[in-house]
Amino acid sequence: MSDYCVGIDIGGTTVKCGLFKLNGELLEKWEVPTRKVDAGKFILSDVASELKNRMEAHGLTNQNLRGIGLGVPGPVEPDGHVSVCVNLGWKDVWPAKEMTELMGGDVVCKVGNDANVAALGEMWVGGGRGHSSIVAVTLGTGVGGGIIVDGKIVAGAHGLGGEIGHMHVRDDETEYCNCGGRGCVEQAASATGIVNEAKRVLASSDEPSAMREYGDELSCRIVCDCAKAGDKLALRSLETSMEYLGRGLALVAYVVDPEVFVIGGGVSRAGAYLINLLKVYFNQHTPLSNNRPDIVLATLGNDAGIYGAARLVLD
Amino acid sequence: MSDYCVGIDIGGTTVKCGLFKLNGELLEKWEVPTRKVDAGKFILSDVASELKNRMEAHGLTNQNLRGIGLGVPGPVEPDGHVSVCVNLGWKDVWPAKEMTELMGGDVVCKVGNDANVAALGEMWVGGGRGHSSIVAVTLGTGVGGGIIVDGKIVAGAHGLGGEIGHMHVRDDETEYCNCGGRGCVEQAASATGIVNEAKRVLASSDEPSAMREYGDELSCRIVCDCAKAGDKLALRSLETSMEYLGRGLALVAYVVDPEVFVIGGGVSRAGAYLINLLKVYFNQHTPLSNNRPDIVLATLGNDAGIYGAARLVLD
Repeated sequence: MSDYCVGIDIGGTTVKCGLFKLNGELLEKWEVPTRKVDAGKFILSDVASELKNRMEAHGLTNQNLRGIGLGVPGPVEPDGHVSVCVNLGWKDVWPAKEMTELMGGDVVCKVGNDANVAALGEMWVGGGRGHSSIVAVTLGTGVGGGIIVDGKIVAGAHGLGGEIGHMHVRDDETEYCNCGGRGCVEQAASATGIVNEAKRVLASSDEPSAMREYGDELSCRIVCDCAKAGDKLALRSLETSMEYLGRGLALVAYVVDPEVFVIGGGVSRAGAYLINLLKVYFNQHTPLSNNRPDIVLATLGNDAGIYGAARLVLD
Repeated sequence: MSDYCVGIDIGGTTVKCGLFKLNGELLEKWEVPTRKVDAGKFILSDVASELKNRMEAHGLTNQNLRGIGLGVPGPVEPDGHVSVCVNLGWKDVWPAKEMTELMGGDVVCKVGNDANVAALGEMWVGGGRGHSSIVAVTLGTGVGGGIIVDGKIVAGAHGLGGEIGHMHVRDDETEYCNCGGRGCVEQAASATGIVNEAKRVLASSDEPSAMREYGDELSCRIVCDCAKAGDKLALRSLETSMEYLGRGLALVAYVVDPEVFVIGGGVSRAGAYLINLLKVYFNQHTPLSNNRPDIVLATLGNDAGIYGAARLVLD
C-alpha cells in the first residue's frame, strides 16, 4: 500500500525533508545540511541515507511510498534535467533519476523548481487550498512567483515562467535591477525594495517619521509596523510599493487569471493589513471586470517547499 | 470511422464553418449569416441545418464525425455555459449542448471563446505549428490574446485570461481605454492605436511626412507602408507602438513563457518588417535571459477560428 509520499526541498544551506500521508498530513519533518563540496555530489546521497533511517523508524519500505518529490533552487528542464544550479554547485545533474537509484531503483521520483513547487504546496494544503489555478508570490529579499493552472505547474519554455518579480511596472525607477532591467516589481515590492522606497521617501521629505530613528537599521518589518501605527511617511512609501505590486498582479491576472493569488515570504508577515492595501491597487488596475482573483496570505511558510515537493508525485 | 471534425466560428455577422480531416486538412468551408433576431435563437439551428446538407453532400453521417467545435465571441464558462454574449444577443445559452441536440444527440460538441479557439488553430496548423505552448496575439481594431499551455487553452477563472490588450504598459497615456484603464497595450498597438500614435507624432512636429497628405483618412496600413518607405515620422510612431507591444509581450513571457508568440490580425499584414521591429523591443524588455520565446506571424488569417474550433474536439 503506497500510502505515503516524501517531499524534499533542497536549499543552499539545508535540505528540508518531510514525510506525508497522501492527504497532505505531515508526519515528520527533518533537515539535512547541504554539502556543497565537490560540485554538490553528496547532497542527494546524504538526503537518501537519512530518509532511509526515517523510513525504517516508521516501519516503512519503498513499497509504502507513492514517490519522492524534489524541489531544486534553480531552473529545471521539462525532462527533469538540471544544466546548472549555482546555489548547489550542480552541473548537468538528473536529480530525480539519481534519487531513484540511491533509493534502490523502485521509487518514483519527480523534480521541479523550488518556487513552482512551493506554489504547488500552497495549492495543496496552504492558502490556495481548494483551488486548482493559483499564482503564488513570494515577497522576500527578491520577488518570486509560481504559476499553477489546472493543478499543473506552468514552468515555461525558457525558464522565464513565473518570473513575475522581473515584470516591468515602474518607469521612474532610476536604479538597475539584478536582471539588467529597470523598474521591476522586485525593485518596488521585495523586502529590499520596500526599505529602499521608504529611504527615498524619508530623504525627499522633512516631515517627522518614526522610521528616522532607525537609520541604516531600517527594515521592511519596521516600515510595515510604522505604517500600521499611522506613520505618514511609512504609509506613503508602503502604498507606493503595494501600488507597483498591485499593478504587477493585475498584469498577471490579464494573462492567466488565477482563482487566487497567494502571497507569502517574509514581507507577508505584515498580514491582512498588507493584503488589504495591495487589494486596493490590484482592483484599480483591473478595471475590466468586478469579478477578479482574490488575494490571500500563504499559510505554509518555509514548509511550502516540502509540501509541494510531496504533492509533485501525486499526479 | 470518425475521421472528420467540424469547426464553427460564430461571429456577429457571419458564422464561418469548416469540415476537416483529423490531420487538419480543410475539405470545405462555408459561411452562414448570423441571424441575431429573437435573442439569436436561430443561429445554431441555421448552422446545424446547413451542416447536415454539407455532410450529406460528402456522404458523411454523424458516425463519421469525431465532433463539432464552436467558437463564441464572448466569455465561455468552464462548464460550457454562456451567460451573456452581446455580439449574438445570447443570454443563458449552452451552445455545445444545443448543437448536440440539433444534430440528433449523438455528436460530441465543445465550445470555447473565439480568441482562445483561434490560438488553438494557429497552434494546430498555423504559425505555432509544432509547438504546444503559444500565445497568440491578434492586432486588429483591438488587441486580443489566446494563451495555450501544454496544448490546452488557459481561459482563466474570471474571464480575464488572455486579455493582454488591457495590460497596462504606458504611463504617459492621457486617454482612457474602453476597459476603463489608461495606457493599455491596445491603446498603443491596435490598428486604431497605431493611427492615433501617428497622428500625435504628426501634430507634435513640423517635419515633413508622407502621412500628412492622408489627413483623416490615415490608416494603420498607410502608417506601416510609410515607415517601410523610410518616412521618419511614420517610423518614429510605429517604433513607439511596437515598443509598448514589446513591453506587453515581455510581461506575458515573464508569466507563462510560451515557446512562441504568434502575431495575427490586420496589423500583422505589415509582415516581417513589423515582427523585426517588435523583436527589438521585446528583447530589450526581457533582459533576464538570452533564451527567449520567438515571435512569428500567424498564417491562418480569418480561418484560424474554424481550425481551432475543429481542434477543440481532438483532445
